[in-house]
Amino acid sequence: MSHNSFGHLFRITTWGESHGPAIGCVIDGCPPGINITPEEIQSFLDKRRPGQSRHTTQRREPDQVKILSGVFEDEYTDGLRTTGTPISLLIDNVDQRSKDYSNIKESFRPGHADYTYTKKYGLRDYRGGGRSSARETAMRVAAGAIARKVIPGLKITGALVQIGEHKINRDNWDDEQINQNDFFCPDADAANEWATILDKVRKDGSSLGAVIELTATGVPLGLGAPVYGKLDQDLASGLMSINAVKAVEIGAGFDAAALSGEQNADEIRAGDKGPDFLSNNAGGILGGISTGQPVIARFAVKPTSSIRTPRKTINRDGSETEVSTKGRHDPCVGIRAVPVGEAMMALVLADHYLRHRGQVGS
Amino acid sequence: MSHNSFGHLFRITTWGESHGPAIGCVIDGCPPGINITPEEIQSFLDKRRPGQSRHTTQRREPDQVKILSGVFEDEYTDGLRTTGTPISLLIDNVDQRSKDYSNIKESFRPGHADYTYTKKYGLRDYRGGGRSSARETAMRVAAGAIARKVIPGLKITGALVQIGEHKINRDNWDDEQINQNDFFCPDADAANEWATILDKVRKDGSSLGAVIELTATGVPLGLGAPVYGKLDQDLASGLMSINAVKAVEIGAGFDAAALSGEQNADEIRAGDKGPDFLSNNAGGILGGISTGQPVIARFAVKPTSSIRTPRKTINRDGSETEVSTKGRHDPCVGIRAVPVGEAMMALVLADHYLRHRGQVGS
Amino acid sequence: MSHNSFGHLFRITTWGESHGPAIGCVIDGCPPGINITPEEIQSFLDKRRPGQSRHTTQRREPDQVKILSGVFEDEYTDGLRTTGTPISLLIDNVDQRSKDYSNIKESFRPGHADYTYTKKYGLRDYRGGGRSSARETAMRVAAGAIARKVIPGLKITGALVQIGEHKINRDNWDDEQINQNDFFCPDADAANEWATILDKVRKDGSSLGAVIELTATGVPLGLGAPVYGKLDQDLASGLMSINAVKAVEIGAGFDAAALSGEQNADEIRAGDKGPDFLSNNAGGILGGISTGQPVIARFAVKPTSSIRTPRKTINRDGSETEVSTKGRHDPCVGIRAVPVGEAMMALVLADHYLRHRGQVGS
Amino acid sequence: MSHNSFGHLFRITTWGESHGPAIGCVIDGCPPGINITPEEIQSFLDKRRPGQSRHTTQRREPDQVKILSGVFEDEYTDGLRTTGTPISLLIDNVDQRSKDYSNIKESFRPGHADYTYTKKYGLRDYRGGGRSSARETAMRVAAGAIARKVIPGLKITGALVQIGEHKINRDNWDDEQINQNDFFCPDADAANEWATILDKVRKDGSSLGAVIELTATGVPLGLGAPVYGKLDQDLASGLMSINAVKAVEIGAGFDAAALSGEQNADEIRAGDKGPDFLSNNAGGILGGISTGQPVIARFAVKPTSSIRTPRKTINRDGSETEVSTKGRHDPCVGIRAVPVGEAMMALVLADHYLRHRGQVGS
Repeated sequence: MSHNSFGHLFRITTWGESHGPAIGCVIDGCPPGINITPEEIQSFLDKRRPGQSRHTTQRREPDQVKILSGVFEDEYTDGLRTTGTPISLLIDNVDQRSKDYSNIKESFRPGHADYTYTKKYGLRDYRGGGRSSARETAMRVAAGAIARKVIPGLKITGALVQIGEHKINRDNWDDEQINQNDFFCPDADAANEWATILDKVRKDGSSLGAVIELTATGVPLGLGAPVYGKLDQDLASGLMSINAVKAVEIGAGFDAAALSGEQNADEIRAGDKGPDFLSNNAGGILGGISTGQPVIARFAVKPTSSIRTPRKTINRDGSETEVSTKGRHDPCVGIRAVPVGEAMMALVLADHYLRHRGQVGS
Repeated sequence: MSHNSFGHLFRITTWGESHGPAIGCVIDGCPPGINITPEEIQSFLDKRRPGQSRHTTQRREPDQVKILSGVFEDEYTDGLRTTGTPISLLIDNVDQRSKDYSNIKESFRPGHADYTYTKKYGLRDYRGGGRSSARETAMRVAAGAIARKVIPGLKITGALVQIGEHKINRDNWDDEQINQNDFFCPDADAANEWATILDKVRKDGSSLGAVIELTATGVPLGLGAPVYGKLDQDLASGLMSINAVKAVEIGAGFDAAALSGEQNADEIRAGDKGPDFLSNNAGGILGGISTGQPVIARFAVKPTSSIRTPRKTINRDGSETEVSTKGRHDPCVGIRAVPVGEAMMALVLADHYLRHRGQVGS
Repeated sequence: MSHNSFGHLFRITTWGESHGPAIGCVIDGCPPGINITPEEIQSFLDKRRPGQSRHTTQRREPDQVKILSGVFEDEYTDGLRTTGTPISLLIDNVDQRSKDYSNIKESFRPGHADYTYTKKYGLRDYRGGGRSSARETAMRVAAGAIARKVIPGLKITGALVQIGEHKINRDNWDDEQINQNDFFCPDADAANEWATILDKVRKDGSSLGAVIELTATGVPLGLGAPVYGKLDQDLASGLMSINAVKAVEIGAGFDAAALSGEQNADEIRAGDKGPDFLSNNAGGILGGISTGQPVIARFAVKPTSSIRTPRKTINRDGSETEVSTKGRHDPCVGIRAVPVGEAMMALVLADHYLRHRGQVGS
Repeated sequence: MSHNSFGHLFRITTWGESHGPAIGCVIDGCPPGINITPEEIQSFLDKRRPGQSRHTTQRREPDQVKILSGVFEDEYTDGLRTTGTPISLLIDNVDQRSKDYSNIKESFRPGHADYTYTKKYGLRDYRGGGRSSARETAMRVAAGAIARKVIPGLKITGALVQIGEHKINRDNWDDEQINQNDFFCPDADAANEWATILDKVRKDGSSLGAVIELTATGVPLGLGAPVYGKLDQDLASGLMSINAVKAVEIGAGFDAAALSGEQNADEIRAGDKGPDFLSNNAGGILGGISTGQPVIARFAVKPTSSIRTPRKTINRDGSETEVSTKGRHDPCVGIRAVPVGEAMMALVLADHYLRHRGQVGS
C-alpha cells in the first residue's frame, strides 16, 4: 500500500504539512556505498525553492535539508556514503505566517482539494493546504537527487515547453538555455515572451497551466516488466501523483493516435554500438521495457485554483458563498514542477534499475 | 511489487502467454457475498472477444471463462456468491495456430516488444508475443466484471472518440449508440465514416491509433488519498499498463494547460442533494480524491506495429533486415481497448473503495 | 497486501478450495533461464501426497501438477526454461467424494477454522475446509521446488524430530534415514517406535502433534536486512503460515532464554575458507542477516482437530451440540508438514536472495 | 517490500542509527479522528526507556518524542486528533558519548550483527550498532501507543515469565504486580528472586535471556485471513523482528506438539454473550483468524552478546583476536523487550483491524 510512499525497492515515504513544524522523507532501499553530500541535494532543492524569481510564490523558505540517517563517514571510505539503511531527510518549515485563514477555513476553494479532504477525513489542517500543498514536492526533489545517482551515467533533463496556450518553437530548442531563464525553457524567445505574459497574469491575480517535457539519457536497456510493472506505467503513476497534474504521455503520446502503423513504428538499423533507432515515437519504451533510447515523457499542469478572482462556492455548512485566495501563490505552478518531474522520473528509474537487478541479475 | 499484479486490496494477478495452453487470473481481496455468475463475466468478455466484426482480428477464440475457486452456492445463500477467498479465472487458448513464426522469431518487429523482451530476459516465447500479447487483457476484462459489482450503483461507460485523425463530433454524443456499432462510438455519423476508413486500412495491411474516453458515475465522494495514493495516479497507472497505450488524461487533461485559473476551477453551488459543480474540468477528482462528480479519463492507443508493410529492422544476430507481419491482426487495437479500459477503471475504483473503507470506515 | 500471496520479489499467490475443481499457484518474479521440469516438481509433491503410507490420510489424490505458463522450450536453449514471466501451476482435485457433510455443515468443529471463517465472511464452502484445508500446501511444495533452484548450491532438509511427547535421540541422527521411513525421521529407532504409537492413535481416531526441524546449507552470507526485513522474521512468517503451526524458533530458540551471554555467543576463528564459527546457537542468522552457516529453524504442529472422539461445540444457530469428524484424516499432520516446511524455507531464501541482489548487487 | 517498514494498512517506517542525531518513525494509514497526546506516547516510551532501574542500561536518554505531522487541533474537534495523514515521530539522540569504539570497530563481536552487517553492506556505522541497536525499538513503542487506540476496547498486557532458567510460578500470577517491580513480572516472589540473580549477572559482566508473554483482550472476532494473511503469522513476523528474539509461539505453542487432538481442541459452549470456549490452547486464533478469545503469544529473547567476558573472534582483516564489550549494556535485554512486544502486538492488531474492515466492511 502506498498512500504516502512511492516505489518498491527504491522507496520513499514523505510526511509533513505545509504549515506544521517540518516536512520530511524517508528513503528505503538505497544501495550502500553511494557518495552523497547535502550540497548536492540542496542544489536540486534550490531549483524548486520558492522566491527564486518574480514568477514564483514569494513565500520565503530556505528549504535547508538535513540528513538525519543512512549516511556515514569513516576512514575506510572516502567521504559521506550511503550505508544501505534508511535515509531520513528533513526540512524545517520557516515561513509559516500566522496569517488569517478565515476565508479558506470556512469556504471550499473551487478546483482545490479542500472540499474532498474535508469530506473524506472529517477534518483537515486548513492552514495552507496541509498535505495537499505542493510543499510536499520539496521532499520528492531531495529524494530524487539521491535517486539520480543509482544508475551510473543517467542524465535527466526537464524543460517547460508550454505555458497557457503558448508553446515553444521546437526548432529553437537549446539545452543550454534551460537553466538561463526563469522558466527552464529551452527556447530563449519563448522565455522572453512568457515573462511578459506571466507578469500580466500575476498582476491580474490569475494563473496559467503548463506542459513539462522530461528526457532521460543513459537509461539501460531492459528496465521495466511486461504487464503491470511497465516502466511507462510507473512513470505515469509518478508524474500523475504530482500536484495539479492532469495528463501524462510517453514519446509521441496522444499524437500517436493520429499516426499510421508505418509512421509510428521506430525502424531499426545496425549501428556501430548496437541498434540505431531511426525515430523515437516510443519514447524509449516498448512493451513496458526500456529500449536504451532516451526515455521521453510529458505532463500537463493545470492552472492553480489559488487566484484572486472571486469564485462561486459553498461553505462547510453547505451554504453558498464566494471565495478568493489572498496569500502568496505561483501564477504558474508548472515552472516549479520542472525539477519535481525530474525527481519523479529519477525515482521511477532507480526503482526499476534495482527491480531488474533483483530478478535478472545485472 | 507488482510485475504481474495490479491493485492492493482488490488485487489481480494475471498469467499466461498468448500461445500457451491457457491464460488466467487470480483475484484476491474481493469482498464476500457478492453475487456473480459466469454469464455476467462472459458478457463483458464478449465485447472484447476477437472476431466480433470485420474490423477486429479474425483469430477465433471463444474466450469461455471458467471460475475455478472463490465462489460457492449453498442453500443458505441465494445463488453463486463470492466467499472472500481468491477467485481463479481461466480461459483455454483454443486457436493457437501452428503457423510459421520464422520471420518474427529471428527478426525484431519495429515498434514491438520483441526486442526489449528478448534483451531483458535472454529468451522469449516468440509465438505470438507471449506476455506482450494483448490476449492478456481478456483477464482484465473478466476481473473487471467482478470489480464493477464492488461499489453499489457504480456505472462505467467507455467510448471510442477518435480513430486516426478522425474525432467524433461531441454534439452528436448519444450513449445509446455506443453498443450499436462496431466501434463503441457514441456518434453514429462518425461510426459510419470510420467503417469506411478502417476497411481501407485493413485492405492496405496498415493500422491506426485511437482515443478512448471512460466515464464512471456513482463514484462515492472520498476515494483516493492525498499524495501517492491519488485516485487519478492509479487510473493513470492502470490505463498506461494496457498494451499500446501512450497517453492518459483526467478531466480537461492536456487542455487544462491552456486554461486560466478562472476557467479551470469548477465552481460550486448548493444543490438539492448536496453540492452542484458547474463544470467538471477536474474529471471528478480534486487533490487525488473523488468529488462525487463523474470520473472522466481518456487514453490514447498507438497504431499496432503488426502491419503488412515491410519495415527496416535487425535480426537477433544484429544484422539488418526487413520484416512484415502476416498473421491475423486488428487494424485498430483501440476498438477492443474500450472494454479493457472500462475494466481497468473498475479495478482502480474497487481497490480504492476498499482502501477508503479500511482507513476511514465507511 | 498478502492475504493469499507470500514473498516479495519471488512471490507466490495460491488459490483453490479442497473440494473445488482444482487448486493452483502463480509464481511471479522467478528469474529467467532456470531449468525446470514437471518431474522435478512432482518429486517434491509426491513426498507430501496423501496416501503414501498408512500413517497419512487415505484420500487418493494423484496431485499431478500442470505447468500452464512461464516456461518455454526452444532450440536456442537446452530444454524447458523459466522465461521470467509468471509460472502458473495447477492440480486438479480428483478425489472430492460427494460424501455427507451434514455434521460439519451445521456444527463448528472445536479447534478448527470453521467457526472463525463462517463468522468472518458470513459464508463458507463447508465441504472439507475450503481454503483452511491443508490441501493448499500442495501448491507451496510445488512452488518451493522451483524456489530451491534460485540459489545455486542451496540444500534444504526437513526432519521430524518429535511426535506427541516422543522426541528423537539426537545422537542417532542420520541424514540417510530421513527418506527411508514413513516419518522423515533421522533416527531409525524413533521411527520404529513412532510407527507403533501412530497405529494406536489412528485406531483410536485420535491425533498427535509434532515438531519439524529444517536445515538449509549453502545459504550465502548477507541475506536478510536489519529491521523489518530480517531473514528470521520472514522464516517465522512463512512457517507460522502453515496450517496448524503454533510455534517457530531459530537456532537455539526458546532454549536461548536459559543461556548466559557467554554460552550463547557463537565464537569465531579464522578458518581456511573464511570464518569458522565454533557453534551455531544463532541458527545461521545474526541481526536478521545470514552468516553463511547453516540456517536452522524448528516449528511445532498441533494435533489435528479432525478426530473421531465427540467434542462439545455449538451449531450455526448457537445451540449446543457435539461433533466428531468422520472423513479421511491424518493422525499426525506433522508428517506431511515436513516437505511443506522445506518449501516455505526455500521460498523465503529465494525471495531474500533476489532482494539482496536488487539492493546490493551481487 | 518492507526492509524498514512494518504493516500494510497501518504501516510504520522507522529510521535512524543509535549514534546519529535522531531516530524516527512515520506512521501511514492511521484512521483520522483518533485523539492522541504526546503524553500518552511518552508514558509507553518511559516503560522502555533506559536507566529506569539498576537492571537496565545506564545510558541516559530522555527519549522525548516530538510529533511533527499528522495531528491537528482546531475548534471543530476536541483536542489533538489524527488527520489521516502520515504521523511523523522523532526522538533526538542525546547521550551519544564520544567514547572509544576502537575495539568494536576492528573486531566483530561474536553473536552480534557486526559481522553480517559489515559483510552485507561493505560498510557500517560502528558506533553502537547503527540500525542493529535496540534503540530502534523506541519508535516501535511510540507507534504502538497510537496503534493501541485503533481498536476500541483493546487491551494489551506484556509480562516477563522467565529470566535465564528461572520461570515464574503461574499460580502466583497477579496482573497488579506487573507494573510494581523492575521486571514487568506478574509473580512478586519471582521478581524478588530475579533481582538478586540479575545483580550478580550484572556484576559479572554477563547476561541472561528471557521469555515474554503477551495477552490481548478485546480483540474482535474475525481479524486475520485464511492463508498468508494469518493473524498468528503476522504476530510471528512482528515479534521475531524484535532484536535478539529467537522464538515465537501462540497459545499452547510448542507444548501443543505433545498434546492429543482431544486435549488440544478448545471445546465450545453456548454462553450468555456468545460462544464460551472451555480452554484457549489456540491462543485466540483458529485457522489464522481471531476467535474473540484473548490472543496470547510468547517470545524468547537471547542473552545479549554485549558482555565483559572476552570471547574469541576475528578482525575485519580476518585475523584472530578476542573481544569484550565495555559500554553500558542491559544484563537482560528481555526486560525492556516487554513494552516492545506489546507495541508489536498492537501494530499487528491495528493493521488487521483495518484490513478486515477494508474487505468485509465492519
